[in-house]
Amino acid sequence: MSHNSFGHLFRVTTWGESHGPAIGVVVDGCPPRIPLTEADIQPWLDKRRPGQSKFTTQRQEPDQVRILSGVFEGLTTGTPISLVIENQDQRSRDYADIAVQYRPGHADVTYDLKYGIRDYRGGGRSSARETAMRVAAGAVARRVLGGRVTIRGALVQVGPHRIDRGRWDWDQIGQNPLFCPDPVAAAAWETYLSEVRKSGSSAGAVIEIVAEGAPPGLGAPIYGKLDADIAAALMSINAVKGVEIGEGFAAAALTGEANADEMRMRDGVVEFASNHAGGILGGIATGQPIVARFAVKPTSSILSPRQSVDRRGHDIEIVTKGRHDPCVGIRAVPVGEAMVACVLADHLLRHRAQNPDAPAILRLPRN
Amino acid sequence: MSHNSFGHLFRVTTWGESHGPAIGVVVDGCPPRIPLTEADIQPWLDKRRPGQSKFTTQRQEPDQVRILSGVFEGLTTGTPISLVIENQDQRSRDYADIAVQYRPGHADVTYDLKYGIRDYRGGGRSSARETAMRVAAGAVARRVLGGRVTIRGALVQVGPHRIDRGRWDWDQIGQNPLFCPDPVAAAAWETYLSEVRKSGSSAGAVIEIVAEGAPPGLGAPIYGKLDADIAAALMSINAVKGVEIGEGFAAAALTGEANADEMRMRDGVVEFASNHAGGILGGIATGQPIVARFAVKPTSSILSPRQSVDRRGHDIEIVTKGRHDPCVGIRAVPVGEAMVACVLADHLLRHRAQNPDAPAILRLPRN
Amino acid sequence: MSHNSFGHLFRVTTWGESHGPAIGVVVDGCPPRIPLTEADIQPWLDKRRPGQSKFTTQRQEPDQVRILSGVFEGLTTGTPISLVIENQDQRSRDYADIAVQYRPGHADVTYDLKYGIRDYRGGGRSSARETAMRVAAGAVARRVLGGRVTIRGALVQVGPHRIDRGRWDWDQIGQNPLFCPDPVAAAAWETYLSEVRKSGSSAGAVIEIVAEGAPPGLGAPIYGKLDADIAAALMSINAVKGVEIGEGFAAAALTGEANADEMRMRDGVVEFASNHAGGILGGIATGQPIVARFAVKPTSSILSPRQSVDRRGHDIEIVTKGRHDPCVGIRAVPVGEAMVACVLADHLLRHRAQNPDAPAILRLPRN
Amino acid sequence: MSHNSFGHLFRVTTWGESHGPAIGVVVDGCPPRIPLTEADIQPWLDKRRPGQSKFTTQRQEPDQVRILSGVFEGLTTGTPISLVIENQDQRSRDYADIAVQYRPGHADVTYDLKYGIRDYRGGGRSSARETAMRVAAGAVARRVLGGRVTIRGALVQVGPHRIDRGRWDWDQIGQNPLFCPDPVAAAAWETYLSEVRKSGSSAGAVIEIVAEGAPPGLGAPIYGKLDADIAAALMSINAVKGVEIGEGFAAAALTGEANADEMRMRDGVVEFASNHAGGILGGIATGQPIVARFAVKPTSSILSPRQSVDRRGHDIEIVTKGRHDPCVGIRAVPVGEAMVACVLADHLLRHRAQNPDAPAILRLPRN
Repeated sequence: MSHNSFGHLFRVTTWGESHGPAIGVVVDGCPPRIPLTEADIQPWLDKRRPGQSKFTTQRQEPDQVRILSGVFEGLTTGTPISLVIENQDQRSRDYADIAVQYRPGHADVTYDLKYGIRDYRGGGRSSARETAMRVAAGAVARRVLGGRVTIRGALVQVGPHRIDRGRWDWDQIGQNPLFCPDPVAAAAWETYLSEVRKSGSSAGAVIEIVAEGAPPGLGAPIYGKLDADIAAALMSINAVKGVEIGEGFAAAALTGEANADEMRMRDGVVEFASNHAGGILGGIATGQPIVARFAVKPTSSILSPRQSVDRRGHDIEIVTKGRHDPCVGIRAVPVGEAMVACVLADHLLRHRAQNPDAPAILRLPRN
Repeated sequence: MSHNSFGHLFRVTTWGESHGPAIGVVVDGCPPRIPLTEADIQPWLDKRRPGQSKFTTQRQEPDQVRILSGVFEGLTTGTPISLVIENQDQRSRDYADIAVQYRPGHADVTYDLKYGIRDYRGGGRSSARETAMRVAAGAVARRVLGGRVTIRGALVQVGPHRIDRGRWDWDQIGQNPLFCPDPVAAAAWETYLSEVRKSGSSAGAVIEIVAEGAPPGLGAPIYGKLDADIAAALMSINAVKGVEIGEGFAAAALTGEANADEMRMRDGVVEFASNHAGGILGGIATGQPIVARFAVKPTSSILSPRQSVDRRGHDIEIVTKGRHDPCVGIRAVPVGEAMVACVLADHLLRHRAQNPDAPAILRLPRN
Repeated sequence: MSHNSFGHLFRVTTWGESHGPAIGVVVDGCPPRIPLTEADIQPWLDKRRPGQSKFTTQRQEPDQVRILSGVFEGLTTGTPISLVIENQDQRSRDYADIAVQYRPGHADVTYDLKYGIRDYRGGGRSSARETAMRVAAGAVARRVLGGRVTIRGALVQVGPHRIDRGRWDWDQIGQNPLFCPDPVAAAAWETYLSEVRKSGSSAGAVIEIVAEGAPPGLGAPIYGKLDADIAAALMSINAVKGVEIGEGFAAAALTGEANADEMRMRDGVVEFASNHAGGILGGIATGQPIVARFAVKPTSSILSPRQSVDRRGHDIEIVTKGRHDPCVGIRAVPVGEAMVACVLADHLLRHRAQNPDAPAILRLPRN
Repeated sequence: MSHNSFGHLFRVTTWGESHGPAIGVVVDGCPPRIPLTEADIQPWLDKRRPGQSKFTTQRQEPDQVRILSGVFEGLTTGTPISLVIENQDQRSRDYADIAVQYRPGHADVTYDLKYGIRDYRGGGRSSARETAMRVAAGAVARRVLGGRVTIRGALVQVGPHRIDRGRWDWDQIGQNPLFCPDPVAAAAWETYLSEVRKSGSSAGAVIEIVAEGAPPGLGAPIYGKLDADIAAALMSINAVKGVEIGEGFAAAALTGEANADEMRMRDGVVEFASNHAGGILGGIATGQPIVARFAVKPTSSILSPRQSVDRRGHDIEIVTKGRHDPCVGIRAVPVGEAMVACVLADHLLRHRAQNPDAPAILRLPRN
């Protein structure tokens, strides 16, 4: 991960500011002859797109992606894939205030500290708008991984309220505007978030990503461990403050006996009795579902006045107006899926470079 | 982070297996003319060294580090620094069993799945022994960061038992064998861990790392965010299953009002009223203390028999004998410190490459 | 250098095919607060632009560059700079032949061998059109290097004909369409190239790039040597078959006495009596002019029929029609300048990361 | 290529100074289950080892390599391979002079300019001794490439004297101490170099490396072109001032007709009528022999007094005593071979990561 690129062989570079003319991504290293059109990418962008419910920002962006390179007659060519979305709803509002004020919890102050300049319009480069290009890259990564691999995300906590995991039903994800797998929680959260929104406050969230069907062996220890790369990828998403794999922090409270995933042979394949490890041991995928969670802090843009300072060194009171998500965690679901997809695609290429003969399923070694 | 290296400009590459002739690290990109001798590195290694209390493995390794290059007449020369520790206590025990058996919770099965071969002696490359070289590299990183920067770690949870943060006292860290800042908790944990050890079980832990004095502005968004790099660095440590920054997962349950860190000017410098962000906003250091926590799973080597399989595809029962830490989280404290030190040193160099005029304290920009 | 990116800290990623909708470049890592507008980039593109004389392809491309990100109110912001040129003169000719035929000396056959697919229109990704984006990135690099650094290129050989170095006059470069510093040679070459063009043949060339004013100390031995990075950068330009620094291949025939650049102190600064080294010793810049040359093979597109094969495995005779440069080496001059500018900008950042106190002129060390 | 590492997937990191306790290399990313012992590496080191004839330095180093990690029971394990050679003949001479003096043509002055400090003993890090570790890494690379790939080097010019290519005989390489494929030239060169040596002067050389049997398709355009990576790799060798591929600089003087390599089908495989391209088109290997040449300047250490300066800013006269090669180009032959081997191994892994189905011979694509 370096500055605005991530991945080693499946390498993603994004660019663009919230209120510039466009945002984009270059996906380099994609294998050739993979079918790819805008129609393969657009649905994932639509899932993330704002303005779809009252729980996400009302900014209206059609977010129409265009493929500018790397695809010929519907197939990838192995050359860099350039994807671009033009910014349209750059509302010509007055940015005079925000230009010199630092919103608490935002990156305003740190961008200014680091660079001594920032495009303050809509958050500029630090805007969540950038995540649209992660989703676009993730759509390409899914094509690289192929149909065998399924990557799905769900909201498992909103504010202090968690789902009941016993009611987990993937089919519910598309039935509510919160990507919630528990229909009871979904209904309760809608009420809760309406209150939050009306009061001008905001709520945090926890998202869980589950990747199934990825071949065992992915991961490049010691420092390119699969979980380390997933952790970086998820932590790089706006507003994320924590990442965990499998049992995560809960593992600290378990005994060694409870935490170990026992194994048995079944039809010539290793089968695990449980998945506390979240599908990763020693930084390498076991072949079980890869389970990662990440915590998103409450949206920093709130209506309550907060103490802050401005660029000229004055103490100020600040109220963040504008169109904001009461819970940015909701739209982080497709973003988290995309980041995991990109990491897996990258590791798939890295793995087969070093281990071209490694088995695609959980078979034991060759001697 | 790529395979066995991490860092971009302050680049660390480790090598070596638990029971090979030696383990080592190459630190590349270190600035020149920094005083460095073995005596600057050894104390940190001694802190991590096994066999110092009944709560860590009884393997006895003097872990004497040697500098083989990159230092001339007591000063770094800007060329790669090679550090080596010879393995001494490679107990010549019978590894016939472990050679073909997969210990649950260990990387045995995944190394075999990925590579089709593994040095099974003492865990080979996946052994926690590798972390000694992280600590050695961290000692060099501390020299690069200079005396202004302090990086300290503490055990804040063992098994299900947390410290009382109101009793936090850094001076306690060196007063107990558990790096615990709460003397009451320390005493209770010693009793608890003695039980765990006697019963042949194991316990997990949570470690907190606090870095103070690092200049604001460190971090390279969007994908080289400081928190993303810290997350990867900590998640790459053996047995780590979760990482969080500042409030971490608890942030999800806070309101936007509660979570925002308000600012005020004080003597020309920005001062924050709180540090929910853990010192990082938008992936860039604010200049406040950087606070990271990570969860370590319970040691997988336990005396209770567990179901597993062997390399030949037979179902087996396995009991992990040998010298093991009942709680590997304890020795992870200096390792976590070292990883944060390396990440900060790397970002210090990256930051001044792009922003040579950036202020070293929390002053506002230049116009 | 990896796939479609190069540079470590000043990192350039290009994308786009000759006949796709657009070509572009993302420049990441640029320092902030550097004045930059399209007007700083366009003149360099105009210099490379085809259709300006009868010695370059008649394809007419206005090559209007647009800045899509990374610049705010005329200043760079430290975020990625996205530059795009729309392709306009994508002549809708019939590509049926070229789609299945391999032109000798072209990358047709190797792209097909490697990827199993290629965008054959106008050479696709392997077209020299891609070099426009190198020139755009080079314009940004020049801004990073600042006004003190001058990077100029000249054609020093066309076909078998060399300049007389005694007549070298930089002011002549802009006086002829061949970037030739020797007015006598320029006139002769025009006659020669007119013949070459009329006969449907093509000619090679040698280009010399001279960079003056770069600070001493640039270069990152052992493997990031300044000359090694320049060699890679120049060799990556289309049709380049050789690169040399200073005396280059001629050094092999010199004695040690003749080749050594003697030194003397002058006004407190080291002064060299000669520059056989081309400004680089041990991979590090001495502060003298950096001198690099590269050889460009004759344009592979010629009118004489050549033996070849087609995609279906048939022997064929092939004649390359279309609009082509009789000597691609001419337009390689601004491309070579741009590549050297990018390498120097990257090394400037790398150097000050590791050696923030290094002197900017040829002064001796500090003790 | 970054500082002291090169390669992306087959990654080589060297460390060590000429007169430090040891020199070493870490080879990361090597595929597992490849047979490897010290005996596979030692013969290549012996080929480069000094003191074998009167034309190379009389420093006596047994250069015994030890494998410290990454190999288990004679097979690579996929983990980093650490190779070390202890320095033995660190003659305890008086370095008082050289400590403060800058030898013309050497890296003394630039290391001091860059780092403000240097290990001056025997050239420290800039010594050609470092190349021993390149040779060691190259031996591992050869194992990765397998028996099908042959990489051989030859001296084709010494001082101003070239071989007669009509007399080229690979079997002659081992018959003379100069790696010369032309027995007549070899005899003449021995006489010539004896004179050079006696007179205290030195001579340059040109080396040609030919790699046969590598699969077509290697190379990662646009910036990871195979020839660009070979150029960087060879230019990074001590004293190298030029690199060329195939016809190289001579291509500039050829017509397009003469330079194009025509193709014909033969038994279902593409066959080229010539190899002016040196086996690389568009940065991708054609499957023909890969031909690279590089020029080595005359040894800078000569007995004739030269004007120079010292560290304190005094003008001095300097005579370089000590044990030196009259022609460092001779020992550069195995080093050049090793660098090409490492580049090819790296590209082999990169190629199969992106194109796992690409053909291993020059067959045409799949549709």
